[in-house]
Amino acid sequence: MTRTAERSWWGWGRVDQALPDDECVSLAAMLPGLPDRPRPVPRLPDLALPPSRVDPPSSLPVTTDDDARAAHTYGKAYRDVVRALSGDLRAAPDAVAAPGTEDDVVRLLDWAGSAGVVVVPFGGGSSVVGGVEYRGADPWLSLDLTGLDRVLEVDPVSRAARIQGGALGPVLEEQLRPHGLTLRHFPQSFEFSTLGGWLATRAGGHYATLYTHIDDLVESLRVVTPAGVSESWRLPGSGAGPSPDRLFLGSEGTLGVITEAWMRLQDRPRFKASASVAFADMTAAMAAVRAIAQSGLHPANCRLLDPGEAALSGASTAGECVLVLGVESAAHPVDGRLAELTDLARAHGGSVAAAGDGGTDAADTWRSAFLRMPYVRDGLARMSAIVETFETACTWDRAEELYATVRAEIGAAVEEVTGAPGLVNCRFTHVYPDGPAPYFTVIAAGRPGSEVAMWDDVKTAASEVLGRLGATITHHHAVGRDHRPGYDRQRPEPFAVALRAAKAALDPAGILNPGVLIDPCRTAP
Amino acid sequence: MTRTAERSWWGWGRVDQALPDDECVSLAAMLPGLPDRPRPVPRLPDLALPPSRVDPPSSLPVTTDDDARAAHTYGKAYRDVVRALSGDLRAAPDAVAAPGTEDDVVRLLDWAGSAGVVVVPFGGGSSVVGGVEYRGADPWLSLDLTGLDRVLEVDPVSRAARIQGGALGPVLEEQLRPHGLTLRHFPQSFEFSTLGGWLATRAGGHYATLYTHIDDLVESLRVVTPAGVSESWRLPGSGAGPSPDRLFLGSEGTLGVITEAWMRLQDRPRFKASASVAFADMTAAMAAVRAIAQSGLHPANCRLLDPGEAALSGASTAGECVLVLGVESAAHPVDGRLAELTDLARAHGGSVAAAGDGGTDAADTWRSAFLRMPYVRDGLARMSAIVETFETACTWDRAEELYATVRAEIGAAVEEVTGAPGLVNCRFTHVYPDGPAPYFTVIAAGRPGSEVAMWDDVKTAASEVLGRLGATITHHHAVGRDHRPGYDRQRPEPFAVALRAAKAALDPAGILNPGVLIDPCRTAP
Repeated sequence: MTRTAERSWWGWGRVDQALPDDECVSLAAMLPGLPDRPRPVPRLPDLALPPSRVDPPSSLPVTTDDDARAAHTYGKAYRDVVRALSGDLRAAPDAVAAPGTEDDVVRLLDWAGSAGVVVVPFGGGSSVVGGVEYRGADPWLSLDLTGLDRVLEVDPVSRAARIQGGALGPVLEEQLRPHGLTLRHFPQSFEFSTLGGWLATRAGGHYATLYTHIDDLVESLRVVTPAGVSESWRLPGSGAGPSPDRLFLGSEGTLGVITEAWMRLQDRPRFKASASVAFADMTAAMAAVRAIAQSGLHPANCRLLDPGEAALSGASTAGECVLVLGVESAAHPVDGRLAELTDLARAHGGSVAAAGDGGTDAADTWRSAFLRMPYVRDGLARMSAIVETFETACTWDRAEELYATVRAEIGAAVEEVTGAPGLVNCRFTHVYPDGPAPYFTVIAAGRPGSEVAMWDDVKTAASEVLGRLGATITHHHAVGRDHRPGYDRQRPEPFAVALRAAKAALDPAGILNPGVLIDPCRTAP
Repeated sequence: MTRTAERSWWGWGRVDQALPDDECVSLAAMLPGLPDRPRPVPRLPDLALPPSRVDPPSSLPVTTDDDARAAHTYGKAYRDVVRALSGDLRAAPDAVAAPGTEDDVVRLLDWAGSAGVVVVPFGGGSSVVGGVEYRGADPWLSLDLTGLDRVLEVDPVSRAARIQGGALGPVLEEQLRPHGLTLRHFPQSFEFSTLGGWLATRAGGHYATLYTHIDDLVESLRVVTPAGVSESWRLPGSGAGPSPDRLFLGSEGTLGVITEAWMRLQDRPRFKASASVAFADMTAAMAAVRAIAQSGLHPANCRLLDPGEAALSGASTAGECVLVLGVESAAHPVDGRLAELTDLARAHGGSVAAAGDGGTDAADTWRSAFLRMPYVRDGLARMSAIVETFETACTWDRAEELYATVRAEIGAAVEEVTGAPGLVNCRFTHVYPDGPAPYFTVIAAGRPGSEVAMWDDVKTAASEVLGRLGATITHHHAVGRDHRPGYDRQRPEPFAVALRAAKAALDPAGILNPGVLIDPCRTAP
């Protein structure tokens, strides 16, 4: 449990990785009008938590300890960090459970159902959409699953492993390493998110094509629901009715708690190659990326940075777009494939700026900056900057319009809300034959004390424009509570009817993460 | 409607492709003890259908014409063909509807719901699992969707098209051809099955890897349910809750009628290459196929024939296993990829017997024989032979055991049922990194008049052994009514609870294809 001890209760990741005050100050120089000192991080003992309203039997692994409750109050969205920094812990859970076995989970759900206590599953707690924060009036329990962190079984022939849902990324990879196998699902949150969380939210990994979401890496699931334990068979493929696993994938803790999954693994890649390609503008770059996405070459990395994003990340300050391409294989050399990819990029006006062998190259530089980003976000948040992202996906026929419209409208929204222009950058994190997944970053100067309200206004504008253009409310950040209006607009009503019925049948007491996906809250159905 | 006129009411496909009597006789020489003459095909006018029990309003496109009812009584399983040949049409639908618009579908469901008439959606009618045949006591309507056969919209940029659910394979490909695009989903039933049928049953196409099922080619679905029309957004990828489309994919007409889908298309392949590789035995062949499936090379074709299947199809009479490999691309030459694949095959003991450029090669020969097979099946059925298939998928760790056990136990079951040995051949139709999809063919001498009961006994044994070994009851033939016991065993009970609740919410009158997937029949819930 040392891992838990090192975690920040208010911000991203590890306490020892947080930016020192002087770095916060120098970062803030990129925006005019910010305070000259970072907001201090409150000391937990100074903060008052509301008294716990639950009295769980001592036979259950539940604590009402204030530190545990504080650390499970929020996810890790920008608005979560700002609220924590302001010392607002009114929304803290009444208790935190730490099951060590699946049977503990069953007993906890039984107790919660009979006591009328809401249960919010909590993996790594890295939700950026209000997925782990209950907003209703009922007493609630944060169900921390990181005690269920074992790789229970490895099948090297089929290349699959049975893994408990609470295993954090590094914890499960560490256990797979001796077998020469890897899940190779590396979301930005990798260190601080769990397999069960990835599955419950249909997380996106680092693969830019093909195995973008965790969904396709699932062989079978084991899910504890109040109506019983659901376990699908280990199958490489099946056509027997609607996929049971696909109902639980993306269910965000509303239908059950994912305790185990058989996951498809891979051999560690032996061959890697990467290149970066510059384009004069996004029109040319998008045409190249589309050609690549439709080529059947399936690059592992295919990340397009618009000029603002390229500048911010240090990839290029020449006002260009930068496309980072990567290929990898455990079975065969990949130089030929990289050449096919760069040929396509060149044919669409790209100039290949650098090609590496996968050692210390552009992709690695990008990756380090990428993993550092949330800490930078927290540092900027302490300086009252607004720093947040939103992401989507749309078909190629609408991609150029989406890119231009979102930048224009969100740029205008930022200026209206903050009184000054901000940055609205874009990268494509994943690409498909029929469209890209654009990921927008907004950076602007906030006013101390009003940051959350200011961001919420920008986010409302973002959700509106995405919905209007028929782009998804989320490609891989999940729905949670923050995306509900956009999700409700997007989801076909008959599917909502079916999902509500399924939820009522599996969770008749309505205790599982109410407010997420369906039902505003337990007490006002 | 000439297409409909040419269709066989009792057997597979087109009337003019049925085997003449003398070919039936010569085919039957492969099995001892069969009659010396084929059973005559009954004349429809000689057969008595039960009187229709429905009286639909004349404003609806419904007929109670006997020819239409006869042609919609059964699917195209072996047992369907035998029952039709015996003149048994007691199970005929009371009426057949031929909607020309989605609004017709809505009105038909409204009428059926109020009149208590069961509705069984019917695409090409190629179900081999009792999917289009109602077995309850209620009056029922066969809803023939082939009038909804248009490609309504093409998006060449995203490479996608909006296609009506009733379009047969050739009908939709014909409309896509002028755009230079193709769906490239070629199940064996291609000519005689529809897009909506493929989606409702999660059909398997010709791609042996990657895009095996139709599922991943779906961008969005439009489904008419009694509770309203469900339409998902066109999205290349999304993480917004459980996938709405995945609930309807595989729902086999129990939740709604798929009237339209936006489907992901491809450019027509310009480069093709194929090879066939011989292996001494299945152990070596399976190891090679596993290495290929786990290599990330994604061959379009990777079909393994066991010695019996290789002999029967003419691929090899040397007692060898034959692996047919194929690669294709619209974007780049594929010879390098084929070489990588044959290298892997050689490394596992294969000897590359032939490599072609995709012209008139082994793969094409196989394809012709493959498409001819159902007509041969019908010819053998007229000779009272038992000719049927069953298929599954399992993980690699169990594949060898499954192959050996199924051949031994089904061989024994055939001998017990028929009193003589039969053929039990196997091919792998699709392969995944974590396991293959084995497809078994059974050929044996039946006793005239007892063929259905004899096959049912063999099929029961097959379902039992698959279930016992944890292999799926169906990889791509769907569940229908015939696979219900196996499906009920396989499906996690909490998922059944959820599916039943979703069904009750979307189809409160329970009129949609009752007996398939859930609920034995309407009147005995």
